Amino acid sequence: MIKVGLLGAGRIAIVHARAIAAHAGSELTAVADVFVENAEKLADAFNSTVATTEEILMDPDINVVLIATPTDTHSDLIERATAAGKAVLCEKPVDLNLERARACAQTVAETGQPVMVGFNRRFDPNFAALKQALDAGEVGKPELLSITSFDPAPPPTSYVKTSGGMFRDMTIHDFDMANFFMGETPVMISAHGASVVSAEIAAAGDVDMAVITMTYADGRIAVIKNSRRAAYGYDQRVELLGSKGLLQAQNMLENTVVKSTEAGVVGARPTYFFLERYMAAFRAEWDAFANALSGGAALPVTLADGVTALAMAEAATQSAQTGLPVKLDAFL
Amino acid sequence: MIKVGLLGAGRIAIVHARAIAAHAGSELTAVADVFVENAEKLADAFNSTVATTEEILMDPDINVVLIATPTDTHSDLIERATAAGKAVLCEKPVDLNLERARACAQTVAETGQPVMVGFNRRFDPNFAALKQALDAGEVGKPELLSITSFDPAPPPTSYVKTSGGMFRDMTIHDFDMANFFMGETPVMISAHGASVVSAEIAAAGDVDMAVITMTYADGRIAVIKNSRRAAYGYDQRVELLGSKGLLQAQNMLENTVVKSTEAGVVGARPTYFFLERYMAAFRAEWDAFANALSGGAALPVTLADGVTALAMAEAATQSAQTGLPVKLDAFL
Amino acid sequence: MIKVGLLGAGRIAIVHARAIAAHAGSELTAVADVFVENAEKLADAFNSTVATTEEILMDPDINVVLIATPTDTHSDLIERATAAGKAVLCEKPVDLNLERARACAQTVAETGQPVMVGFNRRFDPNFAALKQALDAGEVGKPELLSITSFDPAPPPTSYVKTSGGMFRDMTIHDFDMANFFMGETPVMISAHGASVVSAEIAAAGDVDMAVITMTYADGRIAVIKNSRRAAYGYDQRVELLGSKGLLQAQNMLENTVVKSTEAGVVGARPTYFFLERYMAAFRAEWDAFANALSGGAALPVTLADGVTALAMAEAATQSAQTGLPVKLDAFL
Amino acid sequence: MIKVGLLGAGRIAIVHARAIAAHAGSELTAVADVFVENAEKLADAFNSTVATTEEILMDPDINVVLIATPTDTHSDLIERATAAGKAVLCEKPVDLNLERARACAQTVAETGQPVMVGFNRRFDPNFAALKQALDAGEVGKPELLSITSFDPAPPPTSYVKTSGGMFRDMTIHDFDMANFFMGETPVMISAHGASVVSAEIAAAGDVDMAVITMTYADGRIAVIKNSRRAAYGYDQRVELLGSKGLLQAQNMLENTVVKSTEAGVVGARPTYFFLERYMAAFRAEWDAFANALSGGAALPVTLADGVTALAMAEAATQSAQTGLPVKLDAFL
Repeated sequence: MIKVGLLGAGRIAIVHARAIAAHAGSELTAVADVFVENAEKLADAFNSTVATTEEILMDPDINVVLIATPTDTHSDLIERATAAGKAVLCEKPVDLNLERARACAQTVAETGQPVMVGFNRRFDPNFAALKQALDAGEVGKPELLSITSFDPAPPPTSYVKTSGGMFRDMTIHDFDMANFFMGETPVMISAHGASVVSAEIAAAGDVDMAVITMTYADGRIAVIKNSRRAAYGYDQRVELLGSKGLLQAQNMLENTVVKSTEAGVVGARPTYFFLERYMAAFRAEWDAFANALSGGAALPVTLADGVTALAMAEAATQSAQTGLPVKLDAFL
Repeated sequence: MIKVGLLGAGRIAIVHARAIAAHAGSELTAVADVFVENAEKLADAFNSTVATTEEILMDPDINVVLIATPTDTHSDLIERATAAGKAVLCEKPVDLNLERARACAQTVAETGQPVMVGFNRRFDPNFAALKQALDAGEVGKPELLSITSFDPAPPPTSYVKTSGGMFRDMTIHDFDMANFFMGETPVMISAHGASVVSAEIAAAGDVDMAVITMTYADGRIAVIKNSRRAAYGYDQRVELLGSKGLLQAQNMLENTVVKSTEAGVVGARPTYFFLERYMAAFRAEWDAFANALSGGAALPVTLADGVTALAMAEAATQSAQTGLPVKLDAFL
Repeated sequence: MIKVGLLGAGRIAIVHARAIAAHAGSELTAVADVFVENAEKLADAFNSTVATTEEILMDPDINVVLIATPTDTHSDLIERATAAGKAVLCEKPVDLNLERARACAQTVAETGQPVMVGFNRRFDPNFAALKQALDAGEVGKPELLSITSFDPAPPPTSYVKTSGGMFRDMTIHDFDMANFFMGETPVMISAHGASVVSAEIAAAGDVDMAVITMTYADGRIAVIKNSRRAAYGYDQRVELLGSKGLLQAQNMLENTVVKSTEAGVVGARPTYFFLERYMAAFRAEWDAFANALSGGAALPVTLADGVTALAMAEAATQSAQTGLPVKLDAFL
Repeated sequence: MIKVGLLGAGRIAIVHARAIAAHAGSELTAVADVFVENAEKLADAFNSTVATTEEILMDPDINVVLIATPTDTHSDLIERATAAGKAVLCEKPVDLNLERARACAQTVAETGQPVMVGFNRRFDPNFAALKQALDAGEVGKPELLSITSFDPAPPPTSYVKTSGGMFRDMTIHDFDMANFFMGETPVMISAHGASVVSAEIAAAGDVDMAVITMTYADGRIAVIKNSRRAAYGYDQRVELLGSKGLLQAQNMLENTVVKSTEAGVVGARPTYFFLERYMAAFRAEWDAFANALSGGAALPVTLADGVTALAMAEAATQSAQTGLPVKLDAFL
């Protein structure tokens, strides 16, 4: 039985609590949050108990710690949890500071504890099916990857200010997806950011739209398109041109109803945001993590994957600022 | 060279004139219409000449007559043209009176002249592709056919009054499509008509919506759904369940643009009506007719096919009126 | 708190147990099954206990009984449970015998206990969205309803033999859907059944494909198409032509991946069968039932709805056997 | 009446001849080609006559010259035809040499003759509908444009060698499309080319896959994706994210048939190549040109547009070679 101590009781923590509850071999043993009220609410809803972070890390019964706290606590908590002999699933990003993340990975390596970073999209049934088709050779060799990743609406500017910027906060998922599909890291990263959505975000020093082009050792190319605003909902598509065809993972729609009138043929909108869109992914993520812990498979996403994605975000940030392509090597 | 005398200069005649013009081996030699002005206009537009029906039938240069006149003249003109040694392509239906149509077919048979009835939908690239997939065994044995055939808007009541009723005027196309796809005629026809679209059509004694179910000797079933009104445009779909899968021919849309907004994901409407929807079909129809005349193939649609479809319309009319299923045999 | 006694521990019972577990205000108190092993397995999986039917009906703590036993026990159990003061959610059909079902409804009425019949499809998010659009007048007045309902593969012949025939077993869902969308019962039912899928089913005296046409007092029409075999998966579509447009609920697909190769543009198959397709519907069904019990709304499906659908199945059975349309009145 | 002298009798010339034949107010007066046989064939097929280039330019009856010869003759012929007082429609590109193209434009300007460059895609009904929706403000302000433009298979290497490279030969269409949709030229162009499709093309010094990112004065971005190979056919899509939604022009498919089997839900392939895909566009292009000549509207595409697109191709070529972004200004 996997006994989980959950650090954090916010929105993303609830999603993970649900995934744990749905897994037969896992149990949510305790929850900690600096806002004790939130922890109590979550504990109530999932038949768990409230504890402090310290208590969770000390509890010999708890063998897994799930970190769903603010980003600036991630690497510290990863280190403390692994030092305490726990396996860890930590939300992305590992840290906003690449040096710190790298140090954390080294510290963890010495403990030998398994640490997985929450790149949930790898577990989305649609992207997973695309990967499976790719690995089965159904479109030959992958040559040109396109990732479209638009949020429905920009986050509050207060959030933006502490987010590390769009590349570290939002694109980091897409960097990991690129690594997932292309099977290697790019050689060069060339990012173009823009401020077209929100004057407030621009004032906060961040971009809200971007196109990132990445080139690989053998000439292959990947493109990521990001925007903080898509009036029609969360737009999460992947498209991969291979030597023998094209694979596309299209948006999930709210329902299958199509309405034909004088106005045209109208389908439903994409599911609104990540909670709806990636609900199945969060469950499959936990299942895969639990399966790896029980020896069923290797960890599907490692801490190193988290550090790599962060390095790509750092490279992209630099490229967007200088207006020049950047070699990823310098950041790895 | 196929030299065509065109009888009629209305809307459908223009469509045929275009098909003839686009065919390298055909020439529109003369046009006749009781409204001479129309004939002149058409002749002008297609570099042809105006003539009387009599002149066309007498002209030894003209070897093909295309009949696009009002329905009540069809069987007479077919008989006269074939008697004059012409091959004939005649618009549907052959006649509103089944007896008359049958007599016409017999008369024609004695001349040995080729007569094709204008069931253009068989030549629609989409339906033709469906038929080809079916014949290639891609979904196994056909078991359940569904035809959806909705007009965008009801015709003028004046037209309805002389149309022979919806089954003879509109459904006749769908009866022929059923024969085309199922490869045989049904044993029983059961029709349910309704007046829900137009009070005027009801007052004229006709239905404006109908569902016709047809059963075949080996148990297979076909369903036709008709309506005189589809607010979103011309709805022309075919769906065929076979032992190994399903074939669908979907609507053609005005364009491929999809617009995603808060209102949903909006595609274009179906092409508005038969001129747009079946433009390619009319061309392919003429090409197939010309090819058959030049010995390249058997006639793809025969006068007998026209009589059979009319018999089915008559059976359906009787079924809708009595509320009882009807054996087709009695009408063949 | 809703405390549920579950009668039956088979496949459909598990689905309901999941829905109960996912509902915050419900608790699975006990499970009974003649195969005690199954009951134990289910109780284990859902932290419940095993009991006999008798014990469940006597338990004053249990206020709701969910009946997921074989059909021939339904009406007896409904009567016993309501007599014991329990609210009931019973799987469809109420009974195979219309008289018995009617008697059951009368008995229940005297107890005043709420009884809901498990027409889960009304709660499918897609069909519910279609209904909502219809009620909002988005396509005007509904005129022509089409229901496509194909199972992926025929059930075992042993099942067919005790199923009451395809109309009572399978089409009964579609009859209820027709009532749901059209808002009233039809006047006439005309059913055509066929045996094209399985010789064994034919030998067992049942049909395996059918088209049922229903006409309404004001001329509107509904068509149901059924087959026991769809090689591509569970085909569950609804299409409704209204005076101002068309509403369609299309199939749910296994994923959103589209693969374009020389072979064409290939999308995923429909979700395989009812467990996958209607998982969300079963949950929403329980939520709606629980909400009604707690006074939040009227029962969304009544026992009377179950009896009506059964009457339609009986009428369709007679129509298919006689080859003649049947007035529904005689069965209500 | 527009009397056209057609220079060139190859594949693209035939397409134009068809468009001219379909236009009521235009006549194909004469055809010239260095391969006289080709000219004769074309003249035969379209009831025209064969002439030399010289004769066409001297013929006072001919008021329009359509240039469909090899690229290296374009600017000379444009200058000679306009000097002879003819209006000109010239295939793209204007020249492979930007200086030469610019000089040509200047020479032409002095004659005052109208010269249109054959950017046929602007006239594609799908792209035109997208533009119309954009101009109507249906998705607000355009922010992020994506053009996917894949050929089905690479051209012969002999063709590649004289093509001026992929950016001048193939992407030039996409550059013009970007100008068409964004309504202005970009400030910076950043191109990444790759050789992944064909070793022969690489040996010839050209790329066969590319991603080009363009940024605009106000921060907006456009991305073009090119490949010389798409195993599933010609892939020609446009996608435009605006402040209020997304517009997409999707591929045209060979037909509307969908086949559902155990293998999935299979639609038809995209129309194979430009002759099929842009047939309607070539006709609409001629209609628009003819309409402009008769004073009905301004020229929809100018020689200056051709020069601008060529400048963008030159900038992209330099960017791909240096690996650095390039300011377009230096090329305009």
